[in-house]
Amino acid sequence: MRIYDVILNKRNGKELTDEEIAFFVSGYTSGEIPDYQASALLMAIYFNGMTERETATLTDAMARSGDTVDLSCFGELSADKHSTGGVGDKTSFIVGPIVASLGGKVTKMSGRGLGHTGGTVDKLESIPGYKINLSNEEFISQVDKVGMAIIGQSGNLTPADKKIYALRDVTATVDSIPLITSSIMSKKIASGSHSIVLDVKVGSGAFMKTPEDAKILAENMVKIGKRCGRNMAALITNMDSPLGNTVGNALEIKEAVAVLKGEQGGDLKDICIELSAAMLSLIYDTSLDVAREKALQTLKSGKAYEKMLEWISAQGGDTAYIEDTSLFPKSAFEYEVTSDCDGFITSMDTEGIGVASVILGAGRMKKDEKIDYSAGIVINKKTGDKVSKGDTLCTLYTNDKNAIEQAKKRYLSSLTFGQNKKEAEPLVYGCIS
Amino acid sequence: MRIYDVILNKRNGKELTDEEIAFFVSGYTSGEIPDYQASALLMAIYFNGMTERETATLTDAMARSGDTVDLSCFGELSADKHSTGGVGDKTSFIVGPIVASLGGKVTKMSGRGLGHTGGTVDKLESIPGYKINLSNEEFISQVDKVGMAIIGQSGNLTPADKKIYALRDVTATVDSIPLITSSIMSKKIASGSHSIVLDVKVGSGAFMKTPEDAKILAENMVKIGKRCGRNMAALITNMDSPLGNTVGNALEIKEAVAVLKGEQGGDLKDICIELSAAMLSLIYDTSLDVAREKALQTLKSGKAYEKMLEWISAQGGDTAYIEDTSLFPKSAFEYEVTSDCDGFITSMDTEGIGVASVILGAGRMKKDEKIDYSAGIVINKKTGDKVSKGDTLCTLYTNDKNAIEQAKKRYLSSLTFGQNKKEAEPLVYGCIS
Repeated sequence: MRIYDVILNKRNGKELTDEEIAFFVSGYTSGEIPDYQASALLMAIYFNGMTERETATLTDAMARSGDTVDLSCFGELSADKHSTGGVGDKTSFIVGPIVASLGGKVTKMSGRGLGHTGGTVDKLESIPGYKINLSNEEFISQVDKVGMAIIGQSGNLTPADKKIYALRDVTATVDSIPLITSSIMSKKIASGSHSIVLDVKVGSGAFMKTPEDAKILAENMVKIGKRCGRNMAALITNMDSPLGNTVGNALEIKEAVAVLKGEQGGDLKDICIELSAAMLSLIYDTSLDVAREKALQTLKSGKAYEKMLEWISAQGGDTAYIEDTSLFPKSAFEYEVTSDCDGFITSMDTEGIGVASVILGAGRMKKDEKIDYSAGIVINKKTGDKVSKGDTLCTLYTNDKNAIEQAKKRYLSSLTFGQNKKEAEPLVYGCIS
Repeated sequence: MRIYDVILNKRNGKELTDEEIAFFVSGYTSGEIPDYQASALLMAIYFNGMTERETATLTDAMARSGDTVDLSCFGELSADKHSTGGVGDKTSFIVGPIVASLGGKVTKMSGRGLGHTGGTVDKLESIPGYKINLSNEEFISQVDKVGMAIIGQSGNLTPADKKIYALRDVTATVDSIPLITSSIMSKKIASGSHSIVLDVKVGSGAFMKTPEDAKILAENMVKIGKRCGRNMAALITNMDSPLGNTVGNALEIKEAVAVLKGEQGGDLKDICIELSAAMLSLIYDTSLDVAREKALQTLKSGKAYEKMLEWISAQGGDTAYIEDTSLFPKSAFEYEVTSDCDGFITSMDTEGIGVASVILGAGRMKKDEKIDYSAGIVINKKTGDKVSKGDTLCTLYTNDKNAIEQAKKRYLSSLTFGQNKKEAEPLVYGCIS
């Protein structure tokens, strides 16, 4: 087999065989197929697409390209949640404990933040003592005992995806449904969970800009996951505003704790309940309504909060910080951004707000940049809120005084104001399973 | 400017700006743009095409990427002929002398053969003493004095095309009209001739398989050449049979001499008259009919043959071989391929016949393979000819006894026979100017 013919076939609109796809994935991962042939193939895939079978084969080949996690000891209880990337998304820290407190085995391998979206691993590392790296034995044993673990990605999980994604990133072949699907799903499949719930974000801060596009991607991922033998569901959720009121590592942990303690409601709580319900309905094969009721009860009862303490403690984190979040270090500077006008907030560019938070030190624009865990933004007014001149729109937190002016500018340029209240978009556009 | 954005724009169907195209050509030639981004862009061009302006800009940028030949001293008399590649194509050795004997300044830079088509340079090197490499001064001085020169390609002519073509060849992006056009035309523009006649081949041995496709390519090349300020014409000619009766280096030189001496007519002579007429009509701005008449006269008068002797002599070749072509070395083995059946030849796979000739030693499948100048095929029966059992179809010439059986097989499998005479396809499908 020659990679030239594989490129030619895809270019000519032919459906690739399983052998051709496996040949590409193994050859490119091993380095036998050079970048310039891989990028030509990826561009041909961009134009001619892939059938469901081709995408499933590609996903499977990528999932098997490196280590895979064996969670078979947990039977049908293992569950994972994946978000396509949002700003201020701290749902894992709430959904995990809710589902684990009801007997689910929640396992999550997460990455660090890059660009305008924060990273789950960075957020957890703001808790003193929290161990991101567990051995396979520690990981399995913790999930068995506590019901959940969130760790960093293993070194050799889906090396094919790492290589292909890096190439797509520089050759304008990122936004292709089969390629996005195979990238996300290969990691999820390799991570081993039996049930997988996808949170596909839509809006200004998300990769997918319209609910229609997000629906196509979600349906595709659900189909592919099912073909690979997993229980699948996907929620299409709104990312036209940051989720909750905080953006930044320790700030987001504090907010998650507040929800689990029952001190905060709103969009963040609502979305966590929906995600938890989706996971529970997959694990226990119940209706969404029954599952939602269970999730609400376990949250209300404090069991989910107890589960968070148990989990953080098992993974080495100092739970004193969870029990009293005022212990988290404060940043040296705190700056209130106020409104210059009267009216309503009509839109928020979530990506711009993510960038403002990176400017304050809460994220990184390049790999290996250091993160300031205390930096970030607390948001006071969101889309639809009425504002009067002088009202605090948000508070910026940073240890870098020079960053304040730039972050403020960026934050303000991310908002639009109007004289009429804008109808709120739904928080969840739909659920696909 | 970032190459990523150039790829993205072309992928999204936007027309690239002159600056973007120039940025790609210079960046890729210099090595600043890596192969994997170039191949992604080429595949996007394959899918989304290029406008006439984009193709002209690409052609111009590629033409200027290395050395260019200045033929301005010859005013409007300089002329070049380019064939898209055929089997048994020895027209340059006939057309050049015809046009030069009428005052044209014919300059040609040619390549070596690779694959099933022979190379002009290889054919000329079968003449003892013929110098393929001339200095720029020798080249200009010879064209000035004799009216023509055919030399090998200079080391640094269109380096952008060399690099881009090599990449297209391994990424399934060869058969794209704007990319073929820019590749051919950039070399022609850099070679400096004021008038350019293209011989676009159609048929089994040619890159273009239908007259319709060939017409699109021809029209495109003519337009682009004109935009670059050249006089342009293109003939679309039949390559469903090899041209003339010979395939192989010295054999083809001998055949060209026979036509110039007035000893041979047929398709080869006819096509040479048409090509010469096209060149003369561009140079002297006359009608094709007037130009054709002139070409026929100069051939009949023997002036074109005299011009060939003058040219070969000026370029160091031993004209004794031209005056008496029986002096060319004979191959050790001669093998007549005879017919097994009665009927008519209904088709010839020209590419297969080219491959048979390579098997005999007349060409090379890989760069730097040695060529046997005496090897090749003399064809006795062509498409439309009646054959009886036992008739000689062709004679194989080689110094490699072991090659005979394989070449014979390949030759025979390139022919089809039938009981009815097939209507001959036209020799020239059309002329575009």
